[in-house]
Amino acid sequence: MSPATDAPAVDDAGDGAPTTATVVGASGFAGGELLRLLADHPGFAVTGATSREYAGRSVGAVHPNLRDLDLRFSRPADVADDAVGVLFAAAPHGVAMEHVDTYRAAADLVVDLSADFRLDSAAAYDAWYDGHAAPDHLADAAYGLPEVNREAIADAALVAAGGCNATATILGCYPLAEAGLLDDADVVVDVKVGSSEGGAGGGRAASHAERSGVVRPYAATGHRHEAEIEAWLGTDVSFTAHAVDMVRGASATCHLLFDAAPSTGDLWSAYREAYGDEPFVELVGGGSGTYRYPEPKTVAGTNLAQVGFERDGDDRVVVFSAIDNVLKGAAGQALQAANVALGYAETAGLQRRGLHPVGSP
Amino acid sequence: MSPATDAPAVDDAGDGAPTTATVVGASGFAGGELLRLLADHPGFAVTGATSREYAGRSVGAVHPNLRDLDLRFSRPADVADDAVGVLFAAAPHGVAMEHVDTYRAAADLVVDLSADFRLDSAAAYDAWYDGHAAPDHLADAAYGLPEVNREAIADAALVAAGGCNATATILGCYPLAEAGLLDDADVVVDVKVGSSEGGAGGGRAASHAERSGVVRPYAATGHRHEAEIEAWLGTDVSFTAHAVDMVRGASATCHLLFDAAPSTGDLWSAYREAYGDEPFVELVGGGSGTYRYPEPKTVAGTNLAQVGFERDGDDRVVVFSAIDNVLKGAAGQALQAANVALGYAETAGLQRRGLHPVGSP
Amino acid sequence: MSPATDAPAVDDAGDGAPTTATVVGASGFAGGELLRLLADHPGFAVTGATSREYAGRSVGAVHPNLRDLDLRFSRPADVADDAVGVLFAAAPHGVAMEHVDTYRAAADLVVDLSADFRLDSAAAYDAWYDGHAAPDHLADAAYGLPEVNREAIADAALVAAGGCNATATILGCYPLAEAGLLDDADVVVDVKVGSSEGGAGGGRAASHAERSGVVRPYAATGHRHEAEIEAWLGTDVSFTAHAVDMVRGASATCHLLFDAAPSTGDLWSAYREAYGDEPFVELVGGGSGTYRYPEPKTVAGTNLAQVGFERDGDDRVVVFSAIDNVLKGAAGQALQAANVALGYAETAGLQRRGLHPVGSP
Amino acid sequence: MSPATDAPAVDDAGDGAPTTATVVGASGFAGGELLRLLADHPGFAVTGATSREYAGRSVGAVHPNLRDLDLRFSRPADVADDAVGVLFAAAPHGVAMEHVDTYRAAADLVVDLSADFRLDSAAAYDAWYDGHAAPDHLADAAYGLPEVNREAIADAALVAAGGCNATATILGCYPLAEAGLLDDADVVVDVKVGSSEGGAGGGRAASHAERSGVVRPYAATGHRHEAEIEAWLGTDVSFTAHAVDMVRGASATCHLLFDAAPSTGDLWSAYREAYGDEPFVELVGGGSGTYRYPEPKTVAGTNLAQVGFERDGDDRVVVFSAIDNVLKGAAGQALQAANVALGYAETAGLQRRGLHPVGSP
Repeated sequence: MSPATDAPAVDDAGDGAPTTATVVGASGFAGGELLRLLADHPGFAVTGATSREYAGRSVGAVHPNLRDLDLRFSRPADVADDAVGVLFAAAPHGVAMEHVDTYRAAADLVVDLSADFRLDSAAAYDAWYDGHAAPDHLADAAYGLPEVNREAIADAALVAAGGCNATATILGCYPLAEAGLLDDADVVVDVKVGSSEGGAGGGRAASHAERSGVVRPYAATGHRHEAEIEAWLGTDVSFTAHAVDMVRGASATCHLLFDAAPSTGDLWSAYREAYGDEPFVELVGGGSGTYRYPEPKTVAGTNLAQVGFERDGDDRVVVFSAIDNVLKGAAGQALQAANVALGYAETAGLQRRGLHPVGSP
Repeated sequence: MSPATDAPAVDDAGDGAPTTATVVGASGFAGGELLRLLADHPGFAVTGATSREYAGRSVGAVHPNLRDLDLRFSRPADVADDAVGVLFAAAPHGVAMEHVDTYRAAADLVVDLSADFRLDSAAAYDAWYDGHAAPDHLADAAYGLPEVNREAIADAALVAAGGCNATATILGCYPLAEAGLLDDADVVVDVKVGSSEGGAGGGRAASHAERSGVVRPYAATGHRHEAEIEAWLGTDVSFTAHAVDMVRGASATCHLLFDAAPSTGDLWSAYREAYGDEPFVELVGGGSGTYRYPEPKTVAGTNLAQVGFERDGDDRVVVFSAIDNVLKGAAGQALQAANVALGYAETAGLQRRGLHPVGSP
Repeated sequence: MSPATDAPAVDDAGDGAPTTATVVGASGFAGGELLRLLADHPGFAVTGATSREYAGRSVGAVHPNLRDLDLRFSRPADVADDAVGVLFAAAPHGVAMEHVDTYRAAADLVVDLSADFRLDSAAAYDAWYDGHAAPDHLADAAYGLPEVNREAIADAALVAAGGCNATATILGCYPLAEAGLLDDADVVVDVKVGSSEGGAGGGRAASHAERSGVVRPYAATGHRHEAEIEAWLGTDVSFTAHAVDMVRGASATCHLLFDAAPSTGDLWSAYREAYGDEPFVELVGGGSGTYRYPEPKTVAGTNLAQVGFERDGDDRVVVFSAIDNVLKGAAGQALQAANVALGYAETAGLQRRGLHPVGSP
Repeated sequence: MSPATDAPAVDDAGDGAPTTATVVGASGFAGGELLRLLADHPGFAVTGATSREYAGRSVGAVHPNLRDLDLRFSRPADVADDAVGVLFAAAPHGVAMEHVDTYRAAADLVVDLSADFRLDSAAAYDAWYDGHAAPDHLADAAYGLPEVNREAIADAALVAAGGCNATATILGCYPLAEAGLLDDADVVVDVKVGSSEGGAGGGRAASHAERSGVVRPYAATGHRHEAEIEAWLGTDVSFTAHAVDMVRGASATCHLLFDAAPSTGDLWSAYREAYGDEPFVELVGGGSGTYRYPEPKTVAGTNLAQVGFERDGDDRVVVFSAIDNVLKGAAGQALQAANVALGYAETAGLQRRGLHPVGSP
């Protein structure tokens, strides 16, 4: 299924009214980003934005880019009383599984941004996380990355947006997996991420004085995103994540070791086949100049993923992939999936362009 | 004259065709930003983008956010051959005055982003800069900050967009000058700016290793923007600029010393009177939370100016003002002025919202 | 009194044994810096390092630069049991005044880094802070900035190290005050500081995602350091502080407004007279090159203060001053004062040189 | 041979006079760092500091941390006239090979910081670089990393300090190579480096506006440091380097893929065996707290290398290594090697401790 870029941005099939939307966990970074995207999307009307900590306060008191919105945080319990078209759950891991029955009763479509519904069975979940509180919903949920799962999303009533590091990694390697080129490779994934991945708030390690200027291994081994990566790439991966000094951004360098690496032509064919029509994937193909490979700062503030690669003799291919973790890695992906599920143009509300120059957005 | 926010974004008065536009100096930061803004503005079609250094190359080779544009840099000399609706001149200071006759012959409207036409007489120019090459055009040029000069811009064929530091300072204090509240004040302006103010390229001092982490006085005294500031505020100012560690942003802290400071009520009245209807000025009024005053990072990527103040007993008022120097301080202001001059909706193409969280954009 | 740079670094007057030292609040930034300085100072032996939160853990678990020390945090209550030569109190404001009797019973010399004993009377304290718990000690305490108070420190048993922003400001303007040149000036102080000023830990506003890239007015008016500044400069000051993107560093720009500014010669004379023999003040005198004025990053990691100025016509002098807030603004100043009080060479343990290049230390 | 940490810091074997030293390329970052180290080292007296660009100017005009030195840059040609004990060559690659005869005639010991003499044959050099201008000296030169080549350095008259990225990588994996544990591993090295690696000056890509906030692959494949890495580790490596937002620092993450990974005990044994007595290698062993692995910012300003690892099931070991590229990766390593070659205490002049907190030094 190709992306429906020509579909209307608003639901013309119905009465033309925008879809009502609630954002749970709206004082967090992904929740705030959803509010921003929805505010400027013609197809939605935000009717609720919950926050345990800030209930009753203006959203602009937390998100200074939303001061013009006439919207206050409501209490999480208010969700039950407010039937909406779509509910975005942007709470920490473990919250959505506790409340999923309430969410689904309140909304026609639930898009969860946590890890709660990304794996397809209780067994898979237990292998990487602790016990699941609502395993019956797992089989129902569609993984929310349209580039790999568009058809299932179109039919889903429960969508689980992918993890940010997983999104960067999957988008980098998926075309090769689809083309069968990963079958003989060892896959090492070395990820560099910004501080917004840690979420709003944060303790001593997240403070500016401790976090500035770091190259800090924060998940040397055993990162939970490996589960979804391996599920979608169909192969084991060795995965290590490092915190670096940026706020937004996830960059995955995938080192693929081969006995006989695919040719450059076969690699390009695989990427063009997979992404030729994708509105949010940009292939970055080397060349001269300063920006020859994917870089997170060039996609900051956008829903784009940049993907590029370099062949290293006959035994290695290095794939680079870069996203804005708050957007393509969270809120943007969630909205893109909602567009798909609701029959809106897939790019509606997500066509913001990156900046140049830009520091560390 | 109030801002024409309801005007059409495209020129319906004519044949409905977009206005053709050339950007001179398009490989620089402000020039690239103009290309970005114009690409997404329904009222313009870019027909030329000149660069001495990069003529013949794709604009995406320099500006990685413009890779999707089918546009190559042309030579500066090509300007003469290409009649357009509007020419934006984003070259370094001194270039536009050499070529202004060519520019005006080629375009119905010229918007210059340099300092060449900001002052209204050769004498004023000579006092702050070196001799002017085309003084006859000075009286013709309209200062391009709509918030203080909208009517003149609407009638102008030559517009001189204000300097970035001057824009931040003027927007901070103009309401008080208009209300007569500055007459008895000593004005000290302490500005903090990002590295993009230095323009693309740059030598040793601009390198990342030397420029990172600085609080560097780069214009202790005698900054040339004082000339336009004093012209628009009607008073002398003491001005010092510091480079700090951000890429985009200009923040002006104006310390106003009084024998008897205006009351808080009078101050608010002055700001509301001046900016109540302005689409690109946001008054930031203290309160609690992290973001109580104007901050450049909250307006990064936008055409907004944030303005706020605090009264310090009876003898001082501190005014804070923050802009994105590449947008409201350069390319955004230029496009806003062009919208005014061409009768487009003033906000057309400029309604991008800021991000949260955001690092140092 | 000139600095005793030729005195021994160890106490040869006695038995040659190092002075025993306790650091209270040793898990904080200034406390950790004191541990670092004392570890490499031949005249001290650290016998206690207290922390409420980390008692029992290795100091290297908190301060990664101290992993080689064989030292664990003790409990604050342990101070009472351990008679030492000197006690450095690096706890938050309000703690030292509660425990000062205990501290002084345990140690021959107490050096407090908080604001508790910086002002010389309960009345002065009450005007800027809340009520004082141990006002009887106030008259006893010597302000700990040797450049302005060396003789009193030499005789003191209780020393109050100055505030970081106050230190930068006082060192910038003190020579002019001493020379009588400030009497006719209006003084505006615009300070830019790093995130380490907020101390270890920190909440949402201090997190990397919110704090990166800021120019954030955090004390628009009414900063408590004004009290000590005005006490030592003998004049009122208008003071505003901004958080900027660095970890260490405080930079004060003092705008001095005159009817008739002193001559450049008189200004240089005043600075040379005051600082000609000072081992920790460096006059930075313009010239060409990138580093023409004081900059906090060039003194980062050192106990130096850089001071420089520029005359702006006849009506303004701009003074620039830069320190490392954790060193000259806290732990370094405290150790320098202890050296003075104990008769050690004043520079002992403090002769570290800055780095070039350096980012945002 | 164990490090001679008890040897005198000055040459007591002779007349007690310090060794005279010239630094070629002294206006660069590594050259300036050498001047700093030598200025505070009791065993050296700097008699020359050459710079093509800055000859005749004070070293403090370029390196603001050296303003107190009474030293001006001389011309490169002056080297021939000035017999010295040691000549440090810190010029760009290709310069030392052109002038090595002059250098060796002028100095008893030459320590080159470029890549010119790191490989042991013209054939090896040609395979990675272009033709060598002085291949006869290659067999003479000792690779300058004492941890792997101490005995050869002690006897050498020509020392080639290792590359910064190579140093980080070799120090991370050398103990495993020595223990025979690398024989069956595939080695993927993913390096993150600061902007000072690019050297002083720099063009558009190195400017603060373009370089800030990046995760930029700058050597996707074919990095020349692979040559020395493979020579010292005895195995092929897959190597990719990324520029990240720091000024100083190189961090190597070495992913070692095994069919059957060594046990944790065997890994620890190998590291303790190799580094138990090394004064400049710190094993960082996990644990709790914020700083559980090697981090470049904790060794910034020091000559330390931090090394740590994590075992990932039976098929991967991840090794982390961090250095300050200007010190352990260049000037510090060069001085450490000179100490060895001259019979000084190996740690003389290099015992500076890191800072906490610290930003991006």
